[in-house]
Amino acid sequence: MRDDHRSGCPINLSLEVFGDKWTLLILRDMIFGNRCHFRELLLGSQEGISSNILADRLKSLMALGMLTRADDPTHKQKGIYCLTEMSIGLVPIMAHLGAWGSKWLPVSEELSIRAILLEDGGPPMWEQFMSELRAEHLGTSPPVGQVPSVRAKLQAGYQAVMVKKAQSA
Amino acid sequence: MRDDHRSGCPINLSLEVFGDKWTLLILRDMIFGNRCHFRELLLGSQEGISSNILADRLKSLMALGMLTRADDPTHKQKGIYCLTEMSIGLVPIMAHLGAWGSKWLPVSEELSIRAILLEDGGPPMWEQFMSELRAEHLGTSPPVGQVPSVRAKLQAGYQAVMVKKAQSA
Repeated sequence: MRDDHRSGCPINLSLEVFGDKWTLLILRDMIFGNRCHFRELLLGSQEGISSNILADRLKSLMALGMLTRADDPTHKQKGIYCLTEMSIGLVPIMAHLGAWGSKWLPVSEELSIRAILLEDGGPPMWEQFMSELRAEHLGTSPPVGQVPSVRAKLQAGYQAVMVKKAQSA
Repeated sequence: MRDDHRSGCPINLSLEVFGDKWTLLILRDMIFGNRCHFRELLLGSQEGISSNILADRLKSLMALGMLTRADDPTHKQKGIYCLTEMSIGLVPIMAHLGAWGSKWLPVSEELSIRAILLEDGGPPMWEQFMSELRAEHLGTSPPVGQVPSVRAKLQAGYQAVMVKKAQSA
């Protein structure tokens, strides 16, 4: 354990990584929103992250081994951020946080439907989602015989809520 | 959704609750350390929480409905802090955070053994632990036929590591 940690407790160390409020939101947008460019993460942020905070947190996440950055072959100036096994392993935590938040906090319907679907799907759905993320970000073989993908199912749930809201507006 | 939230996403709202680093550590000490007095939470903190931060976070947690405070019948000046169903519902998140931290971060053996035991026990152990916490904090009937308690099992694991460390020192 390095001396700059408050303690060697795994919950404390995890909070030292996520405790700044923005870090887990960036990872959420990469995992569920499939965003991998700086610009997508900046402009698509529901919470309005600022450019300098985003740049700082992406750098920290790379230093921690939770993201890697590669050049985008189609745009010379752009980088593509990829998840690693370490950050893909956050899916169950995201699922539990989303389920707990949906139960106890004043969530909006369109932004909580994915959390509810993920809770209903349980650990088998989380495992499938992690396999899909590994295929996308780590280049492993995609899971076979699982169509549609978990992200597509979550996205369909979100779209259905948005359509319903538009119709009742 | 109130306007002072960054968004109505359940993960964001959960992070607005936990994103200050100390809040979840206080709840961890209440859940796993069975601490319910201010003084125990202050002096027992592995991370050295300060008195004013502890007082502030306890107040916030009560306002959120995650803690209640009662007078201690044995010490007139002391209050007893109790968990609520909302905070007991964090056990699976704590278990996943602890498991993820133990896998990826520089944890110490004695402070991670409980996370490892909790991961091995899986959801049935978390459910049993939540039942025990409900009995202690909400006054519900204790779970029957489950001896030793989950906290006692976790504590025994911690003690075993400490004894081993003392012997090899």
